[in-house]
Amino acid sequence: MPISFTITARDPGSEARAGTMTTEHGSFPTPAFMPVGTAATVKGVWPEHLKEMGYGCVLSNTYHLYLRPGHERIRKLGGLHRFMGWDRSILTDSGGYQVFSLASLRKVEDEAVTFRSHIDGALHVLSPELAVEAQEAMGSDIRMVLDECVEYPAGRREIEEAVRRTTAWARRSLVASRRAEGGLFGIVQGGMFPDLRKRSAEELRSLDFPGYAIGGVSVGEGTGLQREMVALTAPLLPLEKPRYLMGVGTPADIASAVSCGVDLFDCVLPTRNARNGMLFTTAGTVSIKQARYAEDPSPADENCGCPTCRSFSRAYLRHLYLRKEILSSMLLTAHNLHFYGRWMERIREAIRVGNFGDFMKESLGSRVD
Amino acid sequence: MPISFTITARDPGSEARAGTMTTEHGSFPTPAFMPVGTAATVKGVWPEHLKEMGYGCVLSNTYHLYLRPGHERIRKLGGLHRFMGWDRSILTDSGGYQVFSLASLRKVEDEAVTFRSHIDGALHVLSPELAVEAQEAMGSDIRMVLDECVEYPAGRREIEEAVRRTTAWARRSLVASRRAEGGLFGIVQGGMFPDLRKRSAEELRSLDFPGYAIGGVSVGEGTGLQREMVALTAPLLPLEKPRYLMGVGTPADIASAVSCGVDLFDCVLPTRNARNGMLFTTAGTVSIKQARYAEDPSPADENCGCPTCRSFSRAYLRHLYLRKEILSSMLLTAHNLHFYGRWMERIREAIRVGNFGDFMKESLGSRVD
Repeated sequence: MPISFTITARDPGSEARAGTMTTEHGSFPTPAFMPVGTAATVKGVWPEHLKEMGYGCVLSNTYHLYLRPGHERIRKLGGLHRFMGWDRSILTDSGGYQVFSLASLRKVEDEAVTFRSHIDGALHVLSPELAVEAQEAMGSDIRMVLDECVEYPAGRREIEEAVRRTTAWARRSLVASRRAEGGLFGIVQGGMFPDLRKRSAEELRSLDFPGYAIGGVSVGEGTGLQREMVALTAPLLPLEKPRYLMGVGTPADIASAVSCGVDLFDCVLPTRNARNGMLFTTAGTVSIKQARYAEDPSPADENCGCPTCRSFSRAYLRHLYLRKEILSSMLLTAHNLHFYGRWMERIREAIRVGNFGDFMKESLGSRVD
Repeated sequence: MPISFTITARDPGSEARAGTMTTEHGSFPTPAFMPVGTAATVKGVWPEHLKEMGYGCVLSNTYHLYLRPGHERIRKLGGLHRFMGWDRSILTDSGGYQVFSLASLRKVEDEAVTFRSHIDGALHVLSPELAVEAQEAMGSDIRMVLDECVEYPAGRREIEEAVRRTTAWARRSLVASRRAEGGLFGIVQGGMFPDLRKRSAEELRSLDFPGYAIGGVSVGEGTGLQREMVALTAPLLPLEKPRYLMGVGTPADIASAVSCGVDLFDCVLPTRNARNGMLFTTAGTVSIKQARYAEDPSPADENCGCPTCRSFSRAYLRHLYLRKEILSSMLLTAHNLHFYGRWMERIREAIRVGNFGDFMKESLGSRVD
């Protein structure tokens, strides 16, 4: 079954839209945030709990799963959904981003990327075809083409080359895909060069993907430039197709991108920061290790109804964090994912009732990071 | 409210009995296993989940909580139940065992134990009175007197001295306790010397505690000697009062002690071993890291209905364990605690219906470790 995407509401004052994304594994409302489950697990959370929080799609990283336990092994075990005990949608990336950020000795050629595993130094060759094959083997619902993601800053020539290669790889990915009409997304590159962003988007549009991602942001360029690039890139993509901003971001980053017409998001912030003792709350972020919370009987967030805030004090959360208790990561991750879930819910509701502009003013004017 | 204990069924063929333990925080059936929550958390488990598994009482360690975050801080925060989000019963130990096993430079005198914290080397003095005070500050339901637990092997003179001191401390603990009629348990010592066990038990019985623990086992003496000491000590304790075997043990150890008339158990085995990749199953223990499970689609235990076994394969559990994922500890701990919970349920049921002897033959004859 191919994926489908329907827009159900548009904000009159911005490009924001609400919609429904449907895959073989169910539907979920957009704009949607997808928790990151790098190694086929959203760290510290039972899949059942993710469902209770309302999440309809998680992201998993092809690079990590390709190396361990291997996509063929996951295929043998019935696919990624069964493997990780998650029966809703899964988006996988292509592995490219991790090759560019984690692996060593990488050599990018038109044919493929050659790299050494960050684990054991073994040599691997990742081609656009292999990236498709690995994702199909795992059976994810939404898949990404292999792209060349360049760090910031980078010169025009380098970005131009990455755009050219990304388009060529996107074309090969479609050919390699047994289900081209399905969930394969193209990824727009172009660095911080508006005309190259435009070129990349146009070339990919001509290939007619069922969805498009905005790549090459959140690579060190800073918030201002990032938002500028998103605002510039989103309108270059087909109006009726889902738009996915990769690796972004804070609640405010997300709201800002929604106003540009972005539908899908993933980011390690709520989960990774939880493990580092940082909580997102309606009154701003909280670093739970601080001594001021040592005897604080109040919950992480007075306005939150999550299981963590219903039962546990900041004092207890601090105690667990300082003791490096497993439950610390569990409780903080649950809270942050609940926070992100409610944030997306509020965004969708605001679009549906037509006051997204007010939402932006109220929530961003005040505090959200 | 004092604790109460009622025996509801006796096994005709052994000393085993089933009963009900009641504290301010509810009732639970015995024989009961109490998961260990060292630092006010059973590692890797939400308290709600422990309740779903049927646990009515957890153990927490006074030594650790006394050092961090401090019993006075826990009192200020509304007591240990509120602190850790657990509204059922809590048993705390006296801190003595950890002083003897973890702390350095300890000096045992009649007045108190002087020791250096294993964390920062700070000097502390733990008296029987302070052990009572700390536990009362935390508000646990069942509390232990400070005792002198001697490692195996030890000479008769050393054990004799420990018995004498333990009785003296028990007497002072009762005086210090504001609720002597409540949940304070005496602890029988006596090493591996039957006559000293007898002396210790008699001296403590004369102090009329509401419950008695068998201490000084599981200190390196081995299974045979341990079971011998339990079989010898349990009948020395008042028939109508709860008996608690500290720090024991494997499912077979527990069943064996139940047949001697023991009612309460705690042990780190199901939780600690889970974190080390070891699963208890109806077909014996499983070391999940083994290569043979790499593509094994079956659950940890075919005969188990726990959330881990309902949703996840051995292959996935192995993957998580090798990746050191938080979810590995969570899933394996949940399974092992479920296993221990069902084990105790089967024991209680066998006593109730009068076939505990058959249960012992069937289950121990076959495999349980």
